[in-house]
This record gives sequence, structure tokens and C-alpha cells, in this order.
Amino acid sequence: MRRIVVIGGGAAGASAAARARRLDPGAEVLLIEKTDMITHAPCGIPYAVEGLVKSREDLVTYTPEEFERERKIRVLINTEVVDIDPDKKKVSVKKGDSIEEISWDKLVLATGAIPATPKVPGIDLRDVITIRHPAETDFIKRSLEDKNVIGIIGGGYIGIEMAEALLRLGKKVIMIEMTDQVLPTTIDKDLAEIISKYMIEKGIDLRLSERLIEIRGRERIEKIVTDKNEYKVDAVIIATGVRPNTYLTEKIGIKRGVTGAVEVNEFMETNIEDIYAAGDLVEKYHKILKKKVWIPLAPAANKEGQVAGANAAKGRILRFPGVVGTATTKFEDLYIARTGVSEKEAVENNIKYEAKTIRARTKAHYYPGGVEVYIKMLIEENSKRIIGAQAVGRDPVVISYIDIMSIVIEREMNIEDLFFSDLSYMPATAPVWHPLIVAARVLSKGLL
Amino acid sequence: MRRIVVIGGGAAGASAAARARRLDPGAEVLLIEKTDMITHAPCGIPYAVEGLVKSREDLVTYTPEEFERERKIRVLINTEVVDIDPDKKKVSVKKGDSIEEISWDKLVLATGAIPATPKVPGIDLRDVITIRHPAETDFIKRSLEDKNVIGIIGGGYIGIEMAEALLRLGKKVIMIEMTDQVLPTTIDKDLAEIISKYMIEKGIDLRLSERLIEIRGRERIEKIVTDKNEYKVDAVIIATGVRPNTYLTEKIGIKRGVTGAVEVNEFMETNIEDIYAAGDLVEKYHKILKKKVWIPLAPAANKEGQVAGANAAKGRILRFPGVVGTATTKFEDLYIARTGVSEKEAVENNIKYEAKTIRARTKAHYYPGGVEVYIKMLIEENSKRIIGAQAVGRDPVVISYIDIMSIVIEREMNIEDLFFSDLSYMPATAPVWHPLIVAARVLSKGLL
Repeated sequence: MRRIVVIGGGAAGASAAARARRLDPGAEVLLIEKTDMITHAPCGIPYAVEGLVKSREDLVTYTPEEFERERKIRVLINTEVVDIDPDKKKVSVKKGDSIEEISWDKLVLATGAIPATPKVPGIDLRDVITIRHPAETDFIKRSLEDKNVIGIIGGGYIGIEMAEALLRLGKKVIMIEMTDQVLPTTIDKDLAEIISKYMIEKGIDLRLSERLIEIRGRERIEKIVTDKNEYKVDAVIIATGVRPNTYLTEKIGIKRGVTGAVEVNEFMETNIEDIYAAGDLVEKYHKILKKKVWIPLAPAANKEGQVAGANAAKGRILRFPGVVGTATTKFEDLYIARTGVSEKEAVENNIKYEAKTIRARTKAHYYPGGVEVYIKMLIEENSKRIIGAQAVGRDPVVISYIDIMSIVIEREMNIEDLFFSDLSYMPATAPVWHPLIVAARVLSKGLL
Repeated sequence: MRRIVVIGGGAAGASAAARARRLDPGAEVLLIEKTDMITHAPCGIPYAVEGLVKSREDLVTYTPEEFERERKIRVLINTEVVDIDPDKKKVSVKKGDSIEEISWDKLVLATGAIPATPKVPGIDLRDVITIRHPAETDFIKRSLEDKNVIGIIGGGYIGIEMAEALLRLGKKVIMIEMTDQVLPTTIDKDLAEIISKYMIEKGIDLRLSERLIEIRGRERIEKIVTDKNEYKVDAVIIATGVRPNTYLTEKIGIKRGVTGAVEVNEFMETNIEDIYAAGDLVEKYHKILKKKVWIPLAPAANKEGQVAGANAAKGRILRFPGVVGTATTKFEDLYIARTGVSEKEAVENNIKYEAKTIRARTKAHYYPGGVEVYIKMLIEENSKRIIGAQAVGRDPVVISYIDIMSIVIEREMNIEDLFFSDLSYMPATAPVWHPLIVAARVLSKGLL
């Protein structure tokens, strides 16, 4: 019997397995996962730590047993793949102390990303916590239980989401970010300052432009030392980003791309025949920058998994066309989203652009409950094509603005196209001149 | 001095005047309005009646004085245009008892729509109320003050929004709709039934498939008589739709199109030279149906006004490309939206289609506060191009789903395009498989 083996039970791996199963009922589909959880949602960890989500089990869509029973996919949990032999088409798996070989006809790699931790003294101390896998949620909760002051290293998505969770648990939070803004890789500085201000208002001790030098302590952590200050803390959360988990792929010569992540074509094929890769492990094509990027996020991982699984089962039947750089987060009731190209990325990629940031209300001026939000929009200078958008505001509707813009940008609309688009209006949900249309108008410099 | 005269101070007229002013600083721009309010928002009337919006003055963006002072536009209020002479390029205006002639070089007609009232006995009784103009808000409020049971004739947008307002004022509401569903011209029956059910749950006495025959009473209204029943009521609100206000255009031979509304080209020019028309008075090009439709809504009116004003000032510099049929309303916390082509419209226009209605949650399964919403999607049978979408649910995010779909549909995306689009994900605002992507997947019948 033909066997399709998938390594990694997260978004990409589970999608690949499910898709292969559905399209090739005759094959055996085997999913191998290092922890005891599959179809899990790492994005939910902060909410589980906070207690908003009751238990780590709530973070999974299927238990391994359900996946086996309902999806007819064999699942090996607590099982680590330690080696791959691409010639003999076998993987070596380790469960407990025993090592076993499993053969495959098609292999899908979905080993995801792992935290990129700074190499500083003290990084291996107890109570230095990284946010990796929902399986560790209980451990993280226990570690933080008797701690009062928590240092968060890194002001990206995970840092901000953990800051929210800790604040709700009544902890004091000191956030150390080495660049001069929060969300440095995604949001431009003007909007990041609105976010910082709100975080400080809510009680975060935010320290920008400081670099972690050392974590000090013995039995317990005592302090963190930066290039500018020292802070007494009881625990440290490392949220300094992630990197592709290429341990296995390196060993067998699977090619990495310009970003350092595994290179795949649009069919999710690696450079080795019959080996596919998907999810946070791989780099993606950015439709606006027109180059490969590494943006490890769940929606793309799911779809890449689906493409890899479909093609592993049936040959080249699906293509993953790439992303436009949509990402979103929130801090308390401040919603944050972006898509396309930021000003920073435009500069780095030598794109001639114009950018405007507008303030707009979310409802008709006379309708109660509207709030003021910020929208930034970028156009390519010559074509007036819209290439990027960011939004920040205390209403989840700003996330939807960016969803709209993700389509606008992907479809290469210019400001006139957006101005004349047929966005909805009702006093309770939008002003009659929709905020996105106002932004387009402002960018038109009097033309519209 | 060149004079641009605009008739009608609503969305289209005010936009036209503002735009003409901005582009042609040398011209005199004159705005003529029959009531004492300009830049007013008829969509806000139900909220003003309810008291959610404090006064009718809150429903305007500019007072006539502000418009004159800040925009440098001459405004004649309480002034009715009674005749137009296209050859001599004059309008006759009536203010109080005096009639005056005003000459123009370019004329923009923006006389809007007026209620289409059923011709039944009793329609002229006192306390039979139509919803026309914000200027009448105080009158409506006074009329309803001492009334307990209100009959609403018509289950369209205005009927539903007035029903919400009256319910909040503690009135008993009987709604009579002659078709077998609410929102008959916009929402398909399957979703309309969800809306009806919720309206009944909230206390509306909803009577579908009943036609108003007569309104009875003398000093006060006593009852409404339908083809099936009689109902004791204290007042009646007529919400049986609107029709283009073509009184002036008829007189001078301005051409009406297939829909009965004024026909204009994409420059908003009528068949008479130097006369433009915009807003609810005119028909619009429907980009998906590829024919003229009459959809009188404020966002298009604003943009048409802008195009008419720009072209009146500068010649053919802007085009209004048309609409895709986006519309939205709500009843209490049930949000309702649609865009593109409904199933009913597909049938009427001989479009071969497939449709699916899905239920989806608005947040990650584990994140608190998510609700179940309904999304209907239509594709054209052969091309798999998405041609319509409707959504209903107790979260304003369904409005945003339809905003997204309005762009998806306008840009002629098919289900695979939508499936692979880069919509955002975060547990607090969407499931990892976005509801719209799930709908696309369901329509793919196993392909995705």
C-alpha cells in the first residue's frame, strides 16, 4: 500500500494529512508528532496562559484518537523523527527509547518554527520561558503562578499578546525591545507609537532601544540586565522571534532559500523528489514584493499543507500562489493589522512610494459608539497602485479594513479603483464615506 | 461669472457642489434645497426617531451657514425649483410666495427619491407617516409620541430599521409585508427566514404575504385592513419603497432609462447638454449584472455627486464605473448585508449559478465570544467566478465579510482565488480557516 508520511502535527501537517487522506482513499496516511497534541493552535497559548481559554486541550481541533477515528489517519504522538533517508525512502522515528524505521512513498515535512533565543548568559536558567507549543501551556502557567514581575524580551506579536495575558493575571510586566518601536518587523513607526502609548497607559513598563545582555539568578531569576539598565524580575519570557526548524532538512540536503527557510516551488515540492514541505518551515512568495519571504503564520501554513497533501496524493493538482503579507494582533481592545508592504519594506526594496496616515471614525458621526482609528496606506508612486495598508484602533473593524485591503492590494487596485469600490454603508457600522475610501481620496491629492 | 447650480442638498447634491467648488474656484456654485437642511443623512432618521441620535441637527454634516462659510458655496434653503429652462439655461425657484429666475452654465440635478406610497383608501389620513427627509424627524417623533400600536407597511430596509426604533421606544409593532419574506428585493428567502425569526423573537408581529387594502379611521387611525386580516393600530408608517423624484426632469424631457430612473452616462451627463444628474434620481450600471439598475443608496450617491460636480466644473475628468449591489442593514444586534447578485436576481437574469449557505463561527473555536453566522455565496456555474454573497449574524463582522466580498466580486475572483487569498487570522477576530474561505471551499465540492 502506498504510504504518505507527514512529519509535524500542527496546522500545515494536519492539513496535509487530511487532504492526502481525502484525495487518496487507497493510501495509508501517517502523521508523526513529537508532542502529545496535534491540530493545535500555538496562537492560542497566550489566552490559555491567561485562563481565557480553560485548558490546553481546548486549543486543539482534533485529539489524536479523533483524527485516527474520524479522518482515518494513523497518528504517532510523542514520536520524534530523528533521521530521513531520501534514497531508501525511510524515516527513523524515536518513541521513548526505541528507534524504528518507517518507509514512505511521499513525505511531507511540516516541522514548523522554533524560538530564536538570544545567546546571553543566563538564558538556560529555570523560569526563562519560550512560547513554542500548546503542549507546554500547563508548564508555562505553573512557572508563572508564583511570580509577580515578568520580563518580556521582544516587542513582536508574541511579546505583545503575552503582555496582555500577564496584565490580566495581575502581573507587573517589563517589556524589553531592542529596536526603537514595538512590532518592528511589521508595523511602521508612526502607528507603532500609538500602540506603545496605549501599552504604557495600560501599565506595561515598555523599554525600547534596549538590548538584553544577561539574565542573572541562581535558583530563581533575580534580574535582567540590558545595555542601559537592570530590572528585577521573577521570570523572563523570551519572545525574540522564531526561525524555521530545519534540523531534519539540513541533514539530508534539502535546499534552503534566500530567507534561510526551506525553498519550495508553488507545488510545495522541495529539491528532493517526493519530499514536500509546508508551513512555517518554508519560505513563501510575496505577491507584492515579488520575491520570497519568510512569514510564519497559520493561515498560509494551513493552505500550504493542503497543497502539499493534495499534490503528494495526486501529483501537481494544486498551486500555492503566495501571500501579500497580512498579519494581525491586538493588545487589550487595541486591534492592529497590516497587509502588503510597509514603509520600511518599501524603502528596503527600493520601491518608490507615497504614504499617508489618516484618522477616521468607525461609524457615522451621529451614531453612538464610534471610535477614532488610524489607517495608513501606501501607493506605488507612478502607478498609484495600492501596495500596503496598516490599521490600529480600539474596534475590531480595523482588522476587517485590512482584510479588505489584502484583496485590494492582491488585485492590484489603484486609488481610483478603491475610491469607486462598492463598500457598504450604514450609520451603525461605517461613515457614509468609508474610512478606506477617505484614505484613497487623501492619497489622490485632490484628484478625487 | 460662470455659475454651476445644483438642485438638491442631500448626499449627491452636496458632494457635487463641494467638488465643483474645489475644482473651479472661479465659478459661482449655488446649491438649492427645498427644506432647511443640507448634507443630511436620511439613513439616520430611524435613530433620530428612537432618540439614539439626539436631534435632527445631528444628522447633518454642515449647516447651510457652515457650507456657505467654509465651502464658499451659496446655499438657498426652503427654496423649491419649480421649473427648468434648458434652452435659456435658467431655473425658476420659489421661496415663500415669490418666484425668481436663476441662470446657470452647468446644472446638476440631485432631487433624490420619494416614497412610493400605495394608493389605498385612508393613505392621506393624519398619522400615516412616510420616511422621507431628516427635516421631518421632529414631526415623526411628535406623531408617534402618544401612539402605542404602530403598523409598518413594508418589510424592506426602512421598515426594519423603523421597527427596531419603535421597539426600543416601547411601542407594539405590526409589520405587514406583501411578499413571503422580509427584505424581498435584496436578501434571499433562506437568509430572510433567519431575520424574520429573530424579529418575531424580539416582539415584532410580522405578517408576511399580506397586502394592505385600506387604512381606516377619522380623527385618529383605527385599523389597517389587509387582504387577510384587520389590525387595530394607532399610527401607520409607510415603508413600501421609494421611486426616483423625476418631477422636474419629466417636464423638460430628460430621458429616463429602463428602470424608470434618469439615464446618465458614466460622466453623469443626462441627454441634455450641460445638465448632469446624480444620486437616487439616476440609475446605475451594475458591474456583475452588466445592465442598468436602480439602487438608491448613499455611498453611490456621494460618488456620483462627486463625478457630476467634477465634470460640471472641468469637463469629462471623472467616470463613475457603477456598483456591484452592496447593501446593508441591521435589526437590533442582527447584522445583515449583501453584495453582487442574489439567487433571485440570478434566476431573473438567466445566470446559471450554484449557491451554498454555510454556518460559521466568528472567532477561533476556543476563543470566548464567537457567534454563529450565516454566509451565502453564489458562483457562476461554468467560470466558478463568485457573483454574489449575503451574510446574516449577531456580530457586525458579517458586514465586513460582505465588504470583502464586494471587492472579491468586483475583481471577478473565482473560488480558488478567494481560497488562496491572504485574509487575516487571530483567535479573537476569526477562525484560522476564515469563514469566507470555508464558503469558497464548500463551493469547490472537494477540489479545495
